[in-house]
Parts: sequence; C-alpha cells; structure tokens
Amino acid sequence: MTTNNSVQVSVLGLGAMGSALAGALVKAGYATTVWNRSPEKAEDLVARGAEAAATAGDAVRAGGVVIACLLDHASVHEVLDPLSHELAGRTLINVTTTSPAQSRELAAWAARAGVAYLDGGIMAVPDMIGRPGSSILYSGSAEVFHRYKPLLDLWGTSTYFGEDAGLASLYDLALLAGMYVMFAGFMHGAAMVAPAGVTAGEFAAMATPWLTAMTGAFEGFAEVIDGGDYTVEGQQSLAFSSLGDLLAASSDQGISTEVVAMVQRLIQRQIDAGHGEDGFARIIESIKQPG
Amino acid sequence: MTTNNSVQVSVLGLGAMGSALAGALVKAGYATTVWNRSPEKAEDLVARGAEAAATAGDAVRAGGVVIACLLDHASVHEVLDPLSHELAGRTLINVTTTSPAQSRELAAWAARAGVAYLDGGIMAVPDMIGRPGSSILYSGSAEVFHRYKPLLDLWGTSTYFGEDAGLASLYDLALLAGMYVMFAGFMHGAAMVAPAGVTAGEFAAMATPWLTAMTGAFEGFAEVIDGGDYTVEGQQSLAFSSLGDLLAASSDQGISTEVVAMVQRLIQRQIDAGHGEDGFARIIESIKQPG
Repeated sequence: MTTNNSVQVSVLGLGAMGSALAGALVKAGYATTVWNRSPEKAEDLVARGAEAAATAGDAVRAGGVVIACLLDHASVHEVLDPLSHELAGRTLINVTTTSPAQSRELAAWAARAGVAYLDGGIMAVPDMIGRPGSSILYSGSAEVFHRYKPLLDLWGTSTYFGEDAGLASLYDLALLAGMYVMFAGFMHGAAMVAPAGVTAGEFAAMATPWLTAMTGAFEGFAEVIDGGDYTVEGQQSLAFSSLGDLLAASSDQGISTEVVAMVQRLIQRQIDAGHGEDGFARIIESIKQPG
Repeated sequence: MTTNNSVQVSVLGLGAMGSALAGALVKAGYATTVWNRSPEKAEDLVARGAEAAATAGDAVRAGGVVIACLLDHASVHEVLDPLSHELAGRTLINVTTTSPAQSRELAAWAARAGVAYLDGGIMAVPDMIGRPGSSILYSGSAEVFHRYKPLLDLWGTSTYFGEDAGLASLYDLALLAGMYVMFAGFMHGAAMVAPAGVTAGEFAAMATPWLTAMTGAFEGFAEVIDGGDYTVEGQQSLAFSSLGDLLAASSDQGISTEVVAMVQRLIQRQIDAGHGEDGFARIIESIKQPG
C-alpha cells in the first residue's frame, strides 16, 4: 500500500503495456478506472477490481490522475482533444511512445488546456512492469512527478530528467538506439560464426558475458568525451581500431559487411581528418557532425 | 606454481601484450626466454627473471614452446620463415592477431614444417592478462591445448574451439564485431542527448546498466534463430521494431542517422520480403544473405 493511494486513477488504453500498468495500480489498492476502445480488454482488470468506463470521457471524469498509454501521438490527440475541458484541472501522465518533439507538443497542448502534464518513456516490456529491471523515464511537470512518485514507483524505477517534456522521450530513444544497434552487432557476430557450424546459442553463451564486460568501457569513453581531449593517454587509437580484418573476415564468410562497415566509416572519417592517433571515443564526432 | 612449469618457454614479440604474457609466465616460475626486435623492450622482463635472446633464432632454440605475439600475419612469416628448421619438433602458440584465413595458412605452414600449432585470439587488453575477465580463445592442435592448458590458464580463461586453426580468430573477430558495433550504438545515444545538455557521463550512467540488462535478450534471439522458426509466439515483431521515430529524433537533434539507419535497413529488407510479422531475430537473415 502506498501513502497516497486515495487518488482516483484512470488508465486510457489497455494494450499489453496499459494493462500491465493498470494491473499494478489495482494490485496496490488504487481506485482504478480503465477504458479501451475495444471494451473486452478491460474484463480481466475488472475481475481484479478495476472499474470499466464506457467512454474515454467517463474515464477522465472518474480520475484525478489520467494515465494515457495509447498507440501513438495521433491516438492521444484523437482520444483527448474532445476532452480538453474535462481534463482541465486534472493531471495527465502520458506514457504513450512519442518522439521528443511530439512530447513537447503534447505538453504545450496540455498547458493551454490547464492540464498538469508529465511525460514518461517506459524502458521495459509489459511482463517487467513492477519487477526488478523495469525503468521508467519522466520529464515535464516536476510537481506531478514528485507528488505521484509512490504511484510511479509501482511500475519500476522512476527517474526524472527535467521540465522539458521531450527529455524523457529523447533519453528513451537514445537508450533504445543503443539497444537496437547492440542487437545488430550480436546478430553480425552470430552470422559470422554460423558458416563454421557454430550455433547462435553457442555464440550467445560467449557474447553475453563478453558484451556485458565491454559495457564497462562506456564510462571511460564518456570521461574522454566530456573532457573534450581525445589525445589523453591510455586510449586505443583510431588507427589501431581499423576494422579491415573484420570486414575481410565477414566477406570471407559470405555475409553482409554493412553492420561493421557502418563503424568503419565513423572511424575512417576521423582518420581522414587527421585524427588517427586520437582515441576511439572520437568516433562520436563522426555522429555529431553529419557529413 | 603450475604442475608442468619445467617446460622452457620463449616469447617472440614484447609489445604491451607480449610483455604481459611473458610477465605472467615469469611470475609463475616458468623458465622464459624473450626476444624483441628492439631489445630494450626486454629489460624490464630480464629484471624480473627472464632471459633475453639476442636473435629470434636463439629464442626459438631455447624454447620447447614458442609463443608468437607479433604485429601481424606478415610479421610472423618474416620472423619464423627463416627458422622453420629450428622450429621443427617444437610447439608454436601464435597469439598474433590474424584473420581466420591467415590462421589457417599459418597452421598449414606449421604442419609442413613439422611444428605443432595452436592459434590463440586474446579477448583482453594487456592490463587484464592474468586477471579476472581475461579470456583467450584457442583452435588448432587439441594436443597442444590440453598439454599446455596450465600455462595458458595463467593468462586468462582458456576456451578451445576445435582443430580448424581459423576458428579462434573467427570467434575473436565475431565478438569484436559485437563490441565495436555496441560502442557505436552507445556513441549514437550519447550524441542524441548531448544537444539537450546531457553529458556523456550522465548518459553512460544510464546506458551501462540498460545495455547490460539487454544482453539478456541474446539467448532468446538465439533460440529462435537455432529453431529456424521466426514466427514463434512472444517475439517483438519486425513491423513493431520499425525505427522511424529513432531516425526522426536523431535528425531533429542534428546528428548523423547512419548508425541507426544501418539497423533500419536490416529490418526493412525483411519487412519488404513479406516478413513484417516475424520476430526481430529475423534481421540476422539480412546479414546472412547480402543483397
């Protein structure tokens, strides 16, 4: 039980993620009203103690705090634009996946409507909600974040980034970028060893501890980047990091070289600009300054 | 002390890595002869108890086991081709960084010369040798691997992949591919948040636990890949994984989109081929079958 679960909460959108969020609220004893365009999605939650609202308007009117977990930015406007008068004076916590620009637009829309707005980016799959490892990033109203933190903490670790409502989404996308790119790197490695009869499972058994250990390098890269001096001692140089062997071995295995060639281009642009003796962290300059 | 440190070992090449390998042998009580083209690199090891050889030939003649840790494949031939008669009947453990094809070529050369050959790929930086986290991959002669495993284990965790001398290098390169690509993904994320005033250090503090947690997905991807059925339940679909938001947000931040666009191409080729509802692991097919 939380200390402020006297608040009435409404959850709009009962996809897998919305259902998981609503389920955690019901379990913690919050009076929870749920709404979904297809009403049968509410049945399981009602069986566990939630109230089902017939319309989104009914749900908004029932809640002091309205959680939106819809398909996308357009869906948020579609559902909430007709309800801006009902929302006025209430709190909207929007965890729908949106871009930073879309989050900022919704924050501006909410401000005009007199709605306190907090934007959230969920770094978890629905099964992880309320369990260790679930992390949710927030930005927008600091007052909303701090007032409802006990509620937010039911879902996972809550981190607040600032009043700019786009920050949580920006962080979310930046972390997802890291994830998707890492996944592509894993797939490249698995594809390289496959022609030698190595299964993906055998490769994963080596790659999981290896890449986990190698995340330990991020902090050192960050120190160099934030220090602004790519020539400090103790770094692996860009010239040493040339990926010619990797590209050749990938070609020899008959697979696409495009995954590794992407990294090689980032390295090569810095070498071509005369920075071959600088540290590997300098490849961030190839990304910061598009060619 | 190991049980079989009566063997005489010679180390050719005293760069940072060769010196670290030789240092671990000296420390464990092995009679160790060292050679380097620039002899002053041997001084520190001699002070710790190693013997310095004046020529590579002297070093080879002093060792029952010869460790080669040279600049590249060409250096190995340059140093050892004139010594093939001296090497005959001895054991060569080559940990010089080479491609799979180059490792196989050296194994064939060694076989013709009557030299027992083991190829090693070092997954560690010199400072890590002999410490937790150091991992060295081997392939080639199983007899050499098992006979000298106590010696090899001084340097790190020793894993043997098979008689094909190119396998260790292939695995090494596949794991390095994963690492370099993951680093590029980290850099992309750090570049995305930088215009919002987020330091690389602040981003690293989020990205390190996040990407560590996400390595947990590899095993599931591998099960799907090895199972050969990308339609099994419970996977995130390729259509859902479309990275349009990520590309747009990267462009909005004024940075290069090429890192994420690489992943998007892998996804899109599978969607275009009609597999949008299949799981994300299917992107490996885009790598296995170059366009």
